[in-house]
Amino acid sequence: MWIKADTDYRLYLIADYGIAQDSLPERVSQALAGGVTAVQLRAKELSTRKFYTLGEKLLVITRDHRVPLIINDRLDVALALGAAGVHLGQDDMPPDKARAVMGARFIIGVSARTYAEALSAEQQGADYIGVGAVFPTATKDDASFTPLTTVADIARQLSIPVLAIGGINAGNANAVLDHGVCGLCVAGAILNAPSPNLAAAELRALVHHRRR
Amino acid sequence: MWIKADTDYRLYLIADYGIAQDSLPERVSQALAGGVTAVQLRAKELSTRKFYTLGEKLLVITRDHRVPLIINDRLDVALALGAAGVHLGQDDMPPDKARAVMGARFIIGVSARTYAEALSAEQQGADYIGVGAVFPTATKDDASFTPLTTVADIARQLSIPVLAIGGINAGNANAVLDHGVCGLCVAGAILNAPSPNLAAAELRALVHHRRR
Repeated sequence: MWIKADTDYRLYLIADYGIAQDSLPERVSQALAGGVTAVQLRAKELSTRKFYTLGEKLLVITRDHRVPLIINDRLDVALALGAAGVHLGQDDMPPDKARAVMGARFIIGVSARTYAEALSAEQQGADYIGVGAVFPTATKDDASFTPLTTVADIARQLSIPVLAIGGINAGNANAVLDHGVCGLCVAGAILNAPSPNLAAAELRALVHHRRR
Repeated sequence: MWIKADTDYRLYLIADYGIAQDSLPERVSQALAGGVTAVQLRAKELSTRKFYTLGEKLLVITRDHRVPLIINDRLDVALALGAAGVHLGQDDMPPDKARAVMGARFIIGVSARTYAEALSAEQQGADYIGVGAVFPTATKDDASFTPLTTVADIARQLSIPVLAIGGINAGNANAVLDHGVCGLCVAGAILNAPSPNLAAAELRALVHHRRR
């Protein structure tokens, strides 16, 4: 069982099956070698069985690197795998219901676009919030925007870690970090890079001096 | 908590959101008044949150009729609702993983098309098997066929209840029942009927004298 207090949110990889398909485990492995500190598996396209099988592979890889694996949406897949936690969108299970099922040791993260959504998630027992999209992104084409000033407000008002998500790369990462977030959620900038290892290492260097 | 041994599989309604959309709770309520003995909620089209919200409504309705509510695919929704069980297809969570997570008191049903799939499900701890499709069906257009002779073989060899599914209605129900099944899984023949209550009552009369 992952120890929740050991979680390092500074460089949080969204391992989206839609981006990398069958090369996902290999690219995640490279990204971990480059310094990714947490991994979320997202696989909306897959059947439950294929999602579970892919999760088994990523669990082995993330454990080798002593990094937590968090499962997008599917509490049941997280539970069956023995993953560290779950990440819930606003259309997923309400966070308080997820907490009631999973207990206090399980990581529950929530996506929020606004201060109201972020505050509600914290009140329902979320362990961290992912706020965005802060920039345009090809990964989620329906993403609405959250200005960095709103991200900064949320980071200041909430007591749990606030991460930024959406179109973050090495070129704009410092601008995001200047708005008070604890970490960067990155998908395409690492998984689509010629070398996921080098892309992760470059981002890791930018967050490395930050407090965990 | 539902008592598993009280489950009556004779007339098992597949409450498919795709068939009835927002009228589903009302039609399920009518079907229960007509004598349905178990309800499975199937809602592949809905987000987790909408699935959960619909499940809350059906849980109230099924409890009023002292009938178990079983959730298709989503162990997490079943768990959060406190539903009686889950129904797993061949692309869903492997039954043994589901059993490890949910414990012995929880109903786990499995869809099978062949004797090999049915036997494997029983060996992995399934409580019942749904075999089919025995007839053509509009509900699942990708369904492959399982001859009634195969259904009879499975019902004879397995020690857990075997139900038949796929295109069953009042006109062909007796032919199915003659092949040794414990129950009929019905969707369209009840939910699409002018009166779900009367359609369920007609089918209930056909199974009523059968052993639970």
